[in-house]
This record gives sequence, structure tokens and C-alpha cells, in this order.
Amino acid sequence: MIENDLFLRALKGETVSRPPVWMMRQAGRYLPDFMKLKEKYDFFTRCQTPELATEITIMPIDQVGTDAAILFSDILVVLQAMNIEVEMKAGVGPWIPNPIRTAKDLDEVIVPQAEEALDYVLDAVKMTQRELNNRVPLIGFAGSPWTLLCYAVQGQGSKTFDLAKALCFTQPEVAHRLLQMITDTTIDYLKAKVAAGVNAVQLFDSWGGLLSPEDYSTFSWPYIQQIVDALKDHIPVIVFGKGCWFALNEMAQSGASALGVDWTCSPRNARYLSGGQITLQGNFDPSQLLSPIPKIKSDVKKMIDAFGKDRYIVNLGHGILPNIPVDHAKAFVDAVKEYKV
Amino acid sequence: MIENDLFLRALKGETVSRPPVWMMRQAGRYLPDFMKLKEKYDFFTRCQTPELATEITIMPIDQVGTDAAILFSDILVVLQAMNIEVEMKAGVGPWIPNPIRTAKDLDEVIVPQAEEALDYVLDAVKMTQRELNNRVPLIGFAGSPWTLLCYAVQGQGSKTFDLAKALCFTQPEVAHRLLQMITDTTIDYLKAKVAAGVNAVQLFDSWGGLLSPEDYSTFSWPYIQQIVDALKDHIPVIVFGKGCWFALNEMAQSGASALGVDWTCSPRNARYLSGGQITLQGNFDPSQLLSPIPKIKSDVKKMIDAFGKDRYIVNLGHGILPNIPVDHAKAFVDAVKEYKV
Repeated sequence: MIENDLFLRALKGETVSRPPVWMMRQAGRYLPDFMKLKEKYDFFTRCQTPELATEITIMPIDQVGTDAAILFSDILVVLQAMNIEVEMKAGVGPWIPNPIRTAKDLDEVIVPQAEEALDYVLDAVKMTQRELNNRVPLIGFAGSPWTLLCYAVQGQGSKTFDLAKALCFTQPEVAHRLLQMITDTTIDYLKAKVAAGVNAVQLFDSWGGLLSPEDYSTFSWPYIQQIVDALKDHIPVIVFGKGCWFALNEMAQSGASALGVDWTCSPRNARYLSGGQITLQGNFDPSQLLSPIPKIKSDVKKMIDAFGKDRYIVNLGHGILPNIPVDHAKAFVDAVKEYKV
Repeated sequence: MIENDLFLRALKGETVSRPPVWMMRQAGRYLPDFMKLKEKYDFFTRCQTPELATEITIMPIDQVGTDAAILFSDILVVLQAMNIEVEMKAGVGPWIPNPIRTAKDLDEVIVPQAEEALDYVLDAVKMTQRELNNRVPLIGFAGSPWTLLCYAVQGQGSKTFDLAKALCFTQPEVAHRLLQMITDTTIDYLKAKVAAGVNAVQLFDSWGGLLSPEDYSTFSWPYIQQIVDALKDHIPVIVFGKGCWFALNEMAQSGASALGVDWTCSPRNARYLSGGQITLQGNFDPSQLLSPIPKIKSDVKKMIDAFGKDRYIVNLGHGILPNIPVDHAKAFVDAVKEYKV
């Protein structure tokens, strides 16, 4: 049994003494020990070496004290497994040398067996669970099909992902074929992660909020729903769509156990838009962690008061920033642990 | 009298035969003639030379046929007038060599007389109005104080503007002093533009949507409201807050004549959130202009049907992208002109 099961209980909607807390990207660049590993090993080496992924995953549990661990990895490993080359370029970020722009570009793309193609992630899950030794639950994750399509088609990060959208608008059948291939791969991948031992999964629709509600319901949501349908009877699923306030109502009826919200959606709006019943997760502005510690603590208290302590998981509204002092991150977590109604 | 006054009538909420149409950044990089001038003259030369600003402003009226002109300029000229140096760096964008980070950094910042410091903009307004010769109305614009603070403090563009927020969270009194100085400058500047002859003004809160609703109502909205208060009895004011769906209700009660919305806010949500009475402007996804022309035309028709033809100004939900073919931009405008209920 897991010693600290607050996170899993919040996902079930049970009454808790205080909400659980974790932070998106908690195993990342704000941690000095992570930066030491970053100097020695490149990005995908860190993802692909179970010993390194395990060490990084556990860092914030030991050093910041979050109530859940999230496996250190990247959403783009799924594209790599599908035979779409992905590099991490210094100063640029993700870089896809041969982006998908036509039906012909799909010829080389495969739907792999996750157990083979992503075996290193599954090994990292097993190794991390041994090291965690039931202290806290472990979250596995995947990008949404739309968000992965954004990178596969645009070929790199973008403010607008206009080329990804252009594929959807000019060759919708190609876009839907690619989205379905990503969906099939992701379902297989997440099921393998469940078999390897994760305790919950989160879907990141990082770029869903770049779509109009109508395009979202065409090119993003149906594929997320397929993944939720395939997973929800096996494990709690959290759906986080950055900027997707307009879809919260539909998301709440999907069978997901919780919905992530960002800080542009007030607790009141988030409860209203999601129907008031489902567990919500979020939504501290990551930049707010640059505030003085006493302000961080009082802002966290206010946030919990506004969401309510139950059916709520404290988190940031997006990934933690690299320039956050560790003691500020720790103050965020401590403020949750000190919470009294 | 202005020959084509559809835009001004929509701002007054009058019944029109069809909605007016213009495009944010319509005088910009998607126009081949603009690109020729861009090769010859650098960014601020184009802003500061009334002949060039006039020529660029009128290009889309002649070539695409929009129902309003918007003066070619940049929101950052206000910072320059306040003695904050701004450069436009190739590959980087706006670059502020000495960003504002402390109270001391404000010592050099001034609230100028717009008539002197920004005389070149006022000359461009007068010259453009002569050239337009009453064909269509001319819009003047300014950035919101928060959005200008973002650049003044961060020192360049950013996904998060975390340093700008950090100033607000750690030294709020410095942030508010700077915001008030920008506000005072902007009011003087826009009043001078009105005197020079613009027919409406638009405020761009490009980065308002990066703030939580609470921080928005602390660091952005009160300053926009001051500007609306100072201008609204002299000229119609449009407020456009990118990503600011959560503030539409408050905005609708501000005295502004119209509110801009982006494409993540459906027409139905936009009408609901803004109270159903105020003129709305938007919200075609700029990337949607990469669609085939027949799809652009049917999507425009659907959009007008959804907003309704009255109390509505057709626009994009953000600036037009540089890679939009001119005939696609023209198809967008033509679709509005061909609109039948």
C-alpha cells in the first residue's frame, strides 16, 4: 500500500484532511542536482536511461516533498517511437528534421509496439517504483494527439503552430490519419505504463488552447476521449488542456478522474465550467513562485480556500520555470501541507 | 463625411446591411509592397517617417479593400517617447537594452508631451487622412499599460513575461508607478491622435491573457479603464485583450464602444460573457487564412451568422500572419462584402 495516498484519494473524490500537491515539471531545471545531470547527459539520454530517469523523478520527492512523483520523460518520445525523428537543439528546443506535411510523409510513420519501442520508459517506471518504495504514487503521462501533431507537422516549437493548423485545414484526411496513429500508439503506450506500475496518468494538451472551440472538437478532443475511454477502467486519468477553458464542460463528462486548469481560469469559473463535481487540478501561475515566500504562502492558502480542499489537487497552472528558487518551490508545497480550513 | 462609414455605424450599434471588416496588422508583412519597403527602411524609420507610414497604412485599403484603415505604427513608440530605449533586433524582435527592474530605473523615465515626442505619429495621421480622402475611417491605437510594462521590464518578447510579473509580485509599488506613467502618456498620446484626426482608437492588451483574473484586475484593467474614461466622450474606443475572455464582463461595462475577442472565445461565449449588448470584434483564427479560399468564405459566413450581422465588426482574432497569400486575405474581406443574412 502507498503510504501517502492523498493524491489517489483526491482523484477518487474522497474527503481529505488537506489537498495533495505536486508541480508540473517538478523534476526539472529549477533543481541544481538536475542541472548537474543536464551538464553530463543530453536530453534524450536522460529520458532513455532508466537509472537517470529514476534519479530525476525522485529528486523533488526528496528535496521539495510533493505528494506524487511524475516520471521524468518527454511527450516527444512517442513521435520517436513512431519513426519520426526528433532532436533537441540547443537554443531552439524540439526539432523534427523531416516534418509531416503530406500524405506521402506518413508512409514512413509506424504504430509501434510500445513494449518494444518504449521499453526504456517502462523500465524507468519499474525502477522508479522500486526506489519510491510506496512513499507516494507515480504518475505516467503522454501528450495529446493534437499537441504531438503540432510538433510533427510544424517541425519545431511555434507561437501559432500555423503549419500544423494549415495541414488540418487543407488536408484534413492526412491530419486525421496522423492523429489516429498517434492515438493508437498512445493508448498502447499508456496501457504498457499501467502494466509497468504507474498509479495514474496525465494527458498534456499543451497546445489545445491554440484552437477555436470548433477546431478543438474536431482535431483534439475526439482523440483525447478515445484515450480516456481506453484507460479509465484501468487507472485514474487526468486531462490537462492549457488554455482549454472552453472545453471544460465536455471534458468533465469524459470519464476522466480530474481536469487540470491554468491560472487564467479562476477557481470559481473552473468549478462552474466543469459542472462542480469533478476533481480539479491547478492553477498557480508559475511566475507567481517568483513572489516573496510569505506572499506565496498566503496566495496558496487563498487558492485552496477558493477551490475548496476536497476534489482538488494543488498544482501550478503550467510547468515550473527554470528560474524558480528551490526554497520558493518548497514554500509552495509547505503551504499546502500547513493548510487548515 | 466618410463615404464608407459601416465601421463607425457598427461601433455605434446601428443596424447595418452587412458588418464592416478590417484585419489586425492588415498593413504588414503579408503584403509584397510592404516587404519592398521593409527591405529599404528599418522598422522605426517606417514608423517615424509620415510618408512611409501613410503609404503603408493605405496599402490594404487599395489592395484588399477593408472598411477601415489602421495607422501603421507600433505600440512601443510610447516607451521610446518615455525615454526607454527600444530597438528592433533581427531574429529577436523588440529589444530594450536597459529594462526597468528597480525603482531607480524609473529615474530616467519621463511622461512626455505627446505633441512633441510623438509628433511624427500625429503628422502621419494628418497625412493619411488627406490621402484617404474620406474613403474609410482611420483607427489610431496604443498598447495597454500592462502590455507595455511587459516589454519595458522583460526587455524583450517572452512566452511567460515572468520578469514583468516578478516586478509586479515583488515590487508592486514600482510596477504601479510605471503603469501610471504609461497610462498618463497614453491618454495624452491618444488625445493628440484624436485632435490630429483619427476616427476611432483601439487599445491592444496583447499580454493581458497571461495574467490570472485577479492579477489582471490589479495590474492591467484599472489602467485600461482610466484610458477609456479619458477618451470615450471624444471618440469610440475598442478594447482588445488577447486571451482576456475572463474579463469581458467587466470590459463591457467600461464605456468602450466595442470589445475585441480572439478565436478561443466562441461567438456564443463572447456574447454571453460580454452581456449581449456591446459591439464585438473578431475572431477568425489567423491561421485559418491558410485554408483553401472556398473554406475561408464559408467559414466567414458561418462566423457572421454566429455573431449576428449587427453590433459586430469582422476581424481576425489576432494579427494577420506574414505567410498569408494576399488573395486569401482578399477572400476573407470579399466574403464579408458578399454576406447575405
